[in-house]
Amino acid sequence: MERILGIDPGFGRTGWGVIEKVAGEWRAVAWGCIETSVNDPFVDRLCELRDELKLVINKYKPDAVAVEDLFFAKNVKTAMKVGQARGVIILTIKESDLPLHEFTPLQIKQAVTGYGRAEKGQMQKMVGMLLKIKKKITPDDAADALAAALTGGVSAGFLRHCSDSKTVDKKVLKKTGFVV
Amino acid sequence: MERILGIDPGFGRTGWGVIEKVAGEWRAVAWGCIETSVNDPFVDRLCELRDELKLVINKYKPDAVAVEDLFFAKNVKTAMKVGQARGVIILTIKESDLPLHEFTPLQIKQAVTGYGRAEKGQMQKMVGMLLKIKKKITPDDAADALAAALTGGVSAGFLRHCSDSKTVDKKVLKKTGFVV
Repeated sequence: MERILGIDPGFGRTGWGVIEKVAGEWRAVAWGCIETSVNDPFVDRLCELRDELKLVINKYKPDAVAVEDLFFAKNVKTAMKVGQARGVIILTIKESDLPLHEFTPLQIKQAVTGYGRAEKGQMQKMVGMLLKIKKKITPDDAADALAAALTGGVSAGFLRHCSDSKTVDKKVLKKTGFVV
Repeated sequence: MERILGIDPGFGRTGWGVIEKVAGEWRAVAWGCIETSVNDPFVDRLCELRDELKLVINKYKPDAVAVEDLFFAKNVKTAMKVGQARGVIILTIKESDLPLHEFTPLQIKQAVTGYGRAEKGQMQKMVGMLLKIKKKITPDDAADALAAALTGGVSAGFLRHCSDSKTVDKKVLKKTGFVV
């Protein structure tokens, strides 16, 4: 069985979605959003994010993780906060010994819709169609996370690379953009 | 014995400095800078930062940690990178069960020089004088980390709050800005 956890990292909200391959097709297993309270101190929120993410990983036991790469934010202050949340997410994944791959928003849009400048609404519809989810996927963060997971799923060799990661030459993997 | 680890978080370079109180005065124990290679993938560099920081914590066994708070960066992309490193640093400190306090650059400058707009050179001289370090402290990142540690050291009740953190009301501590 092949399972991929997709993550859309954010500061206050981090979307997640798990997909698995059944009879050659990707299906959604579960999705959701980790939200931390604005009333808690920032450091506590980072720890909460780590704890919740660990729960998701332990419950759904993915074989690999696909994380949306971030390049922009409203401003430097927001970027710093989102960055810290992202650092916590990446460290938590690495501590769970899971192969991790980062995809840019452009890569995700291209993989899911075949069009790099697709709009959010189109993307979410396409994710629902591909994963045969009939209702609207909410919240948006979870839909984005499923899109990241799907990008991992449809990327040639993503899981093969991941599952071979203990035996193959790491330098070769790095060259192809895989982080093991 | 009271020991404080100060940290000046950065993406490529993270300064650290340990001070301890001897006969009522703060003295430097050790300082340095964790550097990660630009040739390594970003995720590997985050893990390396975590590993090196753990080594420092295990070797010098501080009672508390003072981290410089960041509010600015050259641009959003840099902020995102520094933020990720900072998230990793904060999580590593929390996983070591150490009390952590964040100080803004303004607070550090005021605590060390008595003047919130002191220049870098003035700051570093003052850190050397206060800690009785005769040679120039290098690199700059380590001097900044020692300044953060000193700010913790001279802040009224910093270590008292920290050492009491397991028994006192956490809500009270949060109100006073301490993160336990």
